[in-house]
Amino acid sequence: MYKIGIVGASGYTGVELARLLVNHPDVELAVATSRQYAGQKLADVYPNLRGLTDIVLEDVVFADLVDRADLFFTAVPHQTAMNIVPAFLAAGKKVVDLSADFRIKDAQVYEAWYQAHIAKEFLDEAVYGLPEINRAQIKGARLVANPGCYPTAILLGLAPLLKNGLVDPATIIADCKSGASGAGRAASVATLYCEVTAGFKAYKVGSHRHTPEIEQEISRLAGQEVAISFTPHLVPMVRGILSTVYAGLVKEVTQDEVDDLYRDFYQNERFVRPCLPGTFPSTHFVRGSNFCDIGCKVDLRTGRIVIVSAIDNLVKGAAGQAVQNMNILLGLDEAAGLGVVPLFP
Amino acid sequence: MYKIGIVGASGYTGVELARLLVNHPDVELAVATSRQYAGQKLADVYPNLRGLTDIVLEDVVFADLVDRADLFFTAVPHQTAMNIVPAFLAAGKKVVDLSADFRIKDAQVYEAWYQAHIAKEFLDEAVYGLPEINRAQIKGARLVANPGCYPTAILLGLAPLLKNGLVDPATIIADCKSGASGAGRAASVATLYCEVTAGFKAYKVGSHRHTPEIEQEISRLAGQEVAISFTPHLVPMVRGILSTVYAGLVKEVTQDEVDDLYRDFYQNERFVRPCLPGTFPSTHFVRGSNFCDIGCKVDLRTGRIVIVSAIDNLVKGAAGQAVQNMNILLGLDEAAGLGVVPLFP
Amino acid sequence: MYKIGIVGASGYTGVELARLLVNHPDVELAVATSRQYAGQKLADVYPNLRGLTDIVLEDVVFADLVDRADLFFTAVPHQTAMNIVPAFLAAGKKVVDLSADFRIKDAQVYEAWYQAHIAKEFLDEAVYGLPEINRAQIKGARLVANPGCYPTAILLGLAPLLKNGLVDPATIIADCKSGASGAGRAASVATLYCEVTAGFKAYKVGSHRHTPEIEQEISRLAGQEVAISFTPHLVPMVRGILSTVYAGLVKEVTQDEVDDLYRDFYQNERFVRPCLPGTFPSTHFVRGSNFCDIGCKVDLRTGRIVIVSAIDNLVKGAAGQAVQNMNILLGLDEAAGLGVVPLFP
Amino acid sequence: MYKIGIVGASGYTGVELARLLVNHPDVELAVATSRQYAGQKLADVYPNLRGLTDIVLEDVVFADLVDRADLFFTAVPHQTAMNIVPAFLAAGKKVVDLSADFRIKDAQVYEAWYQAHIAKEFLDEAVYGLPEINRAQIKGARLVANPGCYPTAILLGLAPLLKNGLVDPATIIADCKSGASGAGRAASVATLYCEVTAGFKAYKVGSHRHTPEIEQEISRLAGQEVAISFTPHLVPMVRGILSTVYAGLVKEVTQDEVDDLYRDFYQNERFVRPCLPGTFPSTHFVRGSNFCDIGCKVDLRTGRIVIVSAIDNLVKGAAGQAVQNMNILLGLDEAAGLGVVPLFP
Repeated sequence: MYKIGIVGASGYTGVELARLLVNHPDVELAVATSRQYAGQKLADVYPNLRGLTDIVLEDVVFADLVDRADLFFTAVPHQTAMNIVPAFLAAGKKVVDLSADFRIKDAQVYEAWYQAHIAKEFLDEAVYGLPEINRAQIKGARLVANPGCYPTAILLGLAPLLKNGLVDPATIIADCKSGASGAGRAASVATLYCEVTAGFKAYKVGSHRHTPEIEQEISRLAGQEVAISFTPHLVPMVRGILSTVYAGLVKEVTQDEVDDLYRDFYQNERFVRPCLPGTFPSTHFVRGSNFCDIGCKVDLRTGRIVIVSAIDNLVKGAAGQAVQNMNILLGLDEAAGLGVVPLFP
Repeated sequence: MYKIGIVGASGYTGVELARLLVNHPDVELAVATSRQYAGQKLADVYPNLRGLTDIVLEDVVFADLVDRADLFFTAVPHQTAMNIVPAFLAAGKKVVDLSADFRIKDAQVYEAWYQAHIAKEFLDEAVYGLPEINRAQIKGARLVANPGCYPTAILLGLAPLLKNGLVDPATIIADCKSGASGAGRAASVATLYCEVTAGFKAYKVGSHRHTPEIEQEISRLAGQEVAISFTPHLVPMVRGILSTVYAGLVKEVTQDEVDDLYRDFYQNERFVRPCLPGTFPSTHFVRGSNFCDIGCKVDLRTGRIVIVSAIDNLVKGAAGQAVQNMNILLGLDEAAGLGVVPLFP
Repeated sequence: MYKIGIVGASGYTGVELARLLVNHPDVELAVATSRQYAGQKLADVYPNLRGLTDIVLEDVVFADLVDRADLFFTAVPHQTAMNIVPAFLAAGKKVVDLSADFRIKDAQVYEAWYQAHIAKEFLDEAVYGLPEINRAQIKGARLVANPGCYPTAILLGLAPLLKNGLVDPATIIADCKSGASGAGRAASVATLYCEVTAGFKAYKVGSHRHTPEIEQEISRLAGQEVAISFTPHLVPMVRGILSTVYAGLVKEVTQDEVDDLYRDFYQNERFVRPCLPGTFPSTHFVRGSNFCDIGCKVDLRTGRIVIVSAIDNLVKGAAGQAVQNMNILLGLDEAAGLGVVPLFP
Repeated sequence: MYKIGIVGASGYTGVELARLLVNHPDVELAVATSRQYAGQKLADVYPNLRGLTDIVLEDVVFADLVDRADLFFTAVPHQTAMNIVPAFLAAGKKVVDLSADFRIKDAQVYEAWYQAHIAKEFLDEAVYGLPEINRAQIKGARLVANPGCYPTAILLGLAPLLKNGLVDPATIIADCKSGASGAGRAASVATLYCEVTAGFKAYKVGSHRHTPEIEQEISRLAGQEVAISFTPHLVPMVRGILSTVYAGLVKEVTQDEVDDLYRDFYQNERFVRPCLPGTFPSTHFVRGSNFCDIGCKVDLRTGRIVIVSAIDNLVKGAAGQAVQNMNILLGLDEAAGLGVVPLFP
């Protein structure tokens, strides 16, 4: 029974980690921190957890908590993460960091999109935690940079095409739509119920910080430097990302060939479900689960392929993928604790 | 490993049973019927289940399916249930019926609110499946009448008061609010997205068919014949019932005494969670789970007590309670397969 | 062309006033204040108004603005209102106050539920602005206390019964449900999209501040002191209040008699629409409009009557009723500017 | 006072026409048909209209109704429209047809995407009713083909760029998102509340019937034959379309130049509102109104421009644009009856 700590347990990502860990057969939630709610039971802040865990939130006092867990999730904002992760590593702990701080390999790129980086020496070591692509490297790592929600949806959708050279990376356009939980639990006018429900909008058009992360990983898969168009949108729903990606085909393929490609590429993956041919995913059918569903359409009229992928942004796009990475790091069954059936309706 | 059948697996209640059973450690989903989708995989109709079950829906041919399971859930409309349940019993099977057909003990009452009853001889034998009240009788039963969603929320909220004679049953008013999944999956204009979202209304004011069921069970708990006011409302959400019940106090009690009463009454129950004193439930915190959360307020200004209870109508109000009853009938851990953590946010 | 000022124009109620006034044939929006957004165009803060008004928000500098309008709406929180209303009156302006500060006649009651009152000398003079009940007094007033949203829905529903002595006021229970816009536009975790959507809860059970206002007006209509049970609930929708009121009948009446009573009572009212017999209102059908729809059910089984009423909380429950009061105060057509057709779907 | 008829008044588009016409200063709703609800008052089917119109729905008996109006809206499904429009024209009536039947100029294209056309002789004459582009032709027409909702949003967004030759039409990708009211009011499982809310999906990927209409009009604006990628998505909201269009720039332009271009192009249009530079539209701010809001982003990293436009699909995307066309046809103020302020929140 491994002991696990969550730094930043009272945000939506943190409590989602807790939701998954309380039912995990092989680990125990031993530490949960929250500056804002220190001293309160997590289950009093999130009453859905009542009766399931008695853990008390505590302030982040490194010396007090470092010895009480084997692995830590850092579910804190970027910039905060780079300030605490090195100490955990130094203490011999494994870390799955859910912030953006260790995802970008090139510190200059990071600093252009975020702010100054104070722990650059860990950028090389950090493994980009997309298990379906980087499973082998994750196995031996001590620091996993858990991918962003949008990049996860886009990359799982594109990987089979990029690895097989079927599309021109320079033509990639990713039009993505996310539920509101991605914005976190901070009080703000922009994410009030009345400002989100019953409306739809684009935001950070051409300027979202996930752009360099997506481009880095697409470039790696494609073997060439790539710039993409990426537009995020806010959907009036809590959970879910749907990614619609367009790319120009560089060779003639049939719909059947592409359907076979996806089926084969993901045949041993337990969390990626290519849709039945001719059908497309909905965020409905992945809600609460670690699944990524993918459908695609070869459009001969335009010479493009359209790939649609769906994840739950809080699970495969954050906490679930983090638990998957934890399982790999600890040598557990990769799907342990991740058996939640998607909740529909 | 018990084998289980679901008659009526393609409605929202049926697929919710499937959701719970695919993760159940001690039973196996062996039969699933659907007239409409016979021949299709359940997971093709409900893609949330892809990768989790390969069961194929079949038409209801009694002779073909009766021997393939030990216990059957009948998740069919009232009137249909009374036509098929007797045969399963005659074949020595246990049945948890999710319709209204075996809930009302008095056939005349049933026939006044529903239609003619053709299996009256089973009304006496059927046990009203509210485990927190009738656990002992359920244990030895072969036919359990699974309670309605509204009655479950109301009765769990009122039971401690009624059993202790604290309120005047003649003063009970139950103002209840349900999500739209209670209306089922039939195509109809009234339950279209555009007709439900962003609006709120009462329906079947003073005439809902759950009224006699609620009155029967309140009368039993109170030891006297009772008529109540019951008004259901439709909330623009999928899952959840919140029940707000008003009753006149017949003796002076303090808020503390009532809080203690609820805590004691339900202290050994795994699915009933009295709220912290001074707090009230939200359907948010029970979503997807078998929990019933209860809060109450002693109002000395008016001499009334207000009891607020919340359940997921598809789980504790239907499929989850049915699985709980199944567990009792089969001698399993009562909570087996019901460990789903409520999904919030 | 009267000139109108809105003090507090950037909250949901303030901008709703602006929405109605920009289309009003007889008045001109001349002043709009906002501490937070002073210096910005109202239409830049609320882009729905782009192209419809160029008014610039300004800070509340009394001397600068008092002479620029004939009538002021004070759409500010309670306690703020009592600090500014007297000065407008002293300057000879008419005021429609949308806060609670001048609704409660008994200063002691006000102070028990709110805080100290510093302008008690205006309590007698202020007219409770429910035109359907107090039209005559509003006509000659200079200060109208615009009713709360819940009280409006409850009182319009109960007035015909109370005025005709059909119900026992001591038995009144008001179970009310409101959309989230009632909470205003302040940043807070409790009203985030993810905390409101897809859930339903009661709040301030037995302790909401509208209670004394409702009791005061019911007492006036009934001619006796009354204490009621009032429970507000939060519905995952933006606009709308549905009020379900229960009361014991004191004489035998038929459904037809009650239907006739409502039709007659409101026959000359342009904003109250009794539902067709046997039908009940939905907040859907009043959205964006100043209508109050009312349905009722005589329940002989329990000796009670159930009255269901629906309003848009931002219109008939706030800004629309305020404009209606303004029209009366200024001698305009009472419905001027209030012709918006309810938006459905 | 012109007399107006609506053929197909009980669908969402039909009742939206009625909503706009009851407040129109220069026309009178004289005829409203509905096969399903013939004999009922429109206001009993849609209680939002109670007190605003007494019109009774009637069956479509051409001889009975043709003489009672000067202009007819045909708000019926494609294929139905082509069966009735010619008779109205033959009787000397003007027609605004809201179906797809007269939008496609090339009968072969129409028949490839829809079905056989039985009134091809009117295709040449019909004017594509996008007033901001085709106002002059609409003026003298007797048959206006009211544009589809998606095409309206896309074309208004692209017109300034295409007319000025700034983008390569072959690179156009339109990723569009619509609320559920676009699916109409027919009972179906796919549009049930529980199937739409809280989820997001693409549909008819690469195969939606608006594709040829969009391509026809883009080709006309661009002066060359164009094939585009078009993907519609279903948003869990009632009203609104947001269109995100990507196109490759063919010359270097600055953001300022493009902002100026849009401002100038639409400076005399009352229903198109270019957003403030650096801001993007939301469907929130056009709800219930005839506005189209447009924002755009020049992305030098990728050499593309991203254009985001928002409309209310039932208004500028259907009934509002139809009324705008009616106003032009009848020589009325083009904005008459279209002054509804967008409803926010």
